[in-house]
Amino acid sequence: MFMFEKNRVTKLLKIKFPIIQGGMAWVADADLAAAVSNAGGLGVIAAGTMPSELLEEQIIKVTKLTNKPFGMNIMLMSPTADDALEIAVKYRVPVVTTGAGLPGRIIERLKPIGTIVMPVIASVAHAERVAKQGADAVIAEGNEAGGHIGEINTMVLIPQVADAVTIPVIAAGGVADGRGMVAVFALGAEGVQIGTRFVCSTECNVHDNYKQKIINANDRATMVTGYSLGHPVRALKNKMMKSFAEAEKNGLSIEEVESIGAGKLRLAVQEGDVNLGSFMAGQSSGLVKKCEPVASIIEDIISGAKKQSKKIAELAE
Amino acid sequence: MFMFEKNRVTKLLKIKFPIIQGGMAWVADADLAAAVSNAGGLGVIAAGTMPSELLEEQIIKVTKLTNKPFGMNIMLMSPTADDALEIAVKYRVPVVTTGAGLPGRIIERLKPIGTIVMPVIASVAHAERVAKQGADAVIAEGNEAGGHIGEINTMVLIPQVADAVTIPVIAAGGVADGRGMVAVFALGAEGVQIGTRFVCSTECNVHDNYKQKIINANDRATMVTGYSLGHPVRALKNKMMKSFAEAEKNGLSIEEVESIGAGKLRLAVQEGDVNLGSFMAGQSSGLVKKCEPVASIIEDIISGAKKQSKKIAELAE
Repeated sequence: MFMFEKNRVTKLLKIKFPIIQGGMAWVADADLAAAVSNAGGLGVIAAGTMPSELLEEQIIKVTKLTNKPFGMNIMLMSPTADDALEIAVKYRVPVVTTGAGLPGRIIERLKPIGTIVMPVIASVAHAERVAKQGADAVIAEGNEAGGHIGEINTMVLIPQVADAVTIPVIAAGGVADGRGMVAVFALGAEGVQIGTRFVCSTECNVHDNYKQKIINANDRATMVTGYSLGHPVRALKNKMMKSFAEAEKNGLSIEEVESIGAGKLRLAVQEGDVNLGSFMAGQSSGLVKKCEPVASIIEDIISGAKKQSKKIAELAE
Repeated sequence: MFMFEKNRVTKLLKIKFPIIQGGMAWVADADLAAAVSNAGGLGVIAAGTMPSELLEEQIIKVTKLTNKPFGMNIMLMSPTADDALEIAVKYRVPVVTTGAGLPGRIIERLKPIGTIVMPVIASVAHAERVAKQGADAVIAEGNEAGGHIGEINTMVLIPQVADAVTIPVIAAGGVADGRGMVAVFALGAEGVQIGTRFVCSTECNVHDNYKQKIINANDRATMVTGYSLGHPVRALKNKMMKSFAEAEKNGLSIEEVESIGAGKLRLAVQEGDVNLGSFMAGQSSGLVKKCEPVASIIEDIISGAKKQSKKIAELAE
């Protein structure tokens, strides 16, 4: 099979293409995850802050929609993280990705039962730490990603993480097509995690306004707020994001600033409120031109990667 | 010759490798530029705010040190920009790169005499504008670069600029080795501009403390200040940068904030003042491990690019 016969990520995850779908809170549900897994990637359900019953429903649903491997994302700082962990154990979820924090306890609980754990990291030190804790792979996420982000850009994060750890590196942040996929492979990655482009898929259940905002986005459409809180978040520019930035600039209290963003992701995802919603999305929004089925997206990424690889191959002759 | 027989950038500039040295103010002098041009890249002298006599000396010097093409960087917003332009005309400098602003008048003056003009741009709209003005190529610079920066990261800037213009795209920001070079080629670039790594060359005349700070840098060693002034600058973290950030956060007046940074690049370059200097450098600092001759740096980049291209070629089989 093209490209990925010897690829460590496809072997580890028992999937066809080393494309992991980002575990986006409120966005990544069983429908999206099943579509990605059925198309040969790894679909991921975001536990987020979901109550246990809802999360269990989603896990049961995804196993009905696909017989391929899938994953669950656990936000370590979520109050429901431990519940999500126990659900991952109960249902023998094949793969768990983690975000925001140190996943030591997750790895300890899941490794003995054979669950593959892949933490999202945003620096070399963090990558080294989780590798020591026994992570099977790292998802190295650059600053261009959507939602909560780190400070180091994909272009320089990937080679430094690849130099620092021996486990496979999956690149996230700024990858939306085959060009980006080949680029991060050249930097030392062996897989990609893609979020924003999958939001604009037929199978994604977010409000149409969310998809449309990404499709309309140009290269300068995102902004980052929350630096003053120590939790920077990238989302598409709108009234809410500008108010947030203004409040930070004017030195409002942490409580006042945080209240501007609270609950606004749900407002974007479910109600499509273009003014007050938080439309988390990566800088790659500018590369997303349409909404299409997940299978078409993956096909386009792989055929684009094939084309770019051949171009690079000609250079190497 | 490997890789670049059909490359539009090497043909345009009449050089061996499509590697352009960044036109770093106070850093990029005749010695560095000549070394890069002699090694097969394009060396560039930064006009910066240099008085005309000094700049003329540098231009005369570089033509004595190399018979290969070289370039001059003109900062459009510098008070000496027009003087630098006339010197470029007088000495028939083969290539002019421009930074910070619209280069219309530069292109109008230089195109009739056959000088190649390559503006540094940081967004798609800016690229389209300079392409219309007659630029021969664009240097698309991502947010990971050192010094004055834009907001869009290299990983997503390059493919969008490559889609938007037909002239060659040279990628800058985050590229320090062959992996980065192949990565940006996969994204659609046909050349690279490299700054930070060339600072750590034997031929670069900056203070040893500057080179050492880059060599010691890890992935998190840089920070960005100046957002509140509308002119973000990336440099290595130190006392000066932290004071600058603190002053911005505390809402000091623009004059007070600017006074913290004024003259500090010179202090870093010439005196190596580790506390008060402004050690402008890119996020790629973490990838730079030693100081070596320019020729070794270029050899390493090209051999690294060759190796990575072959790896990608295997994927494409």
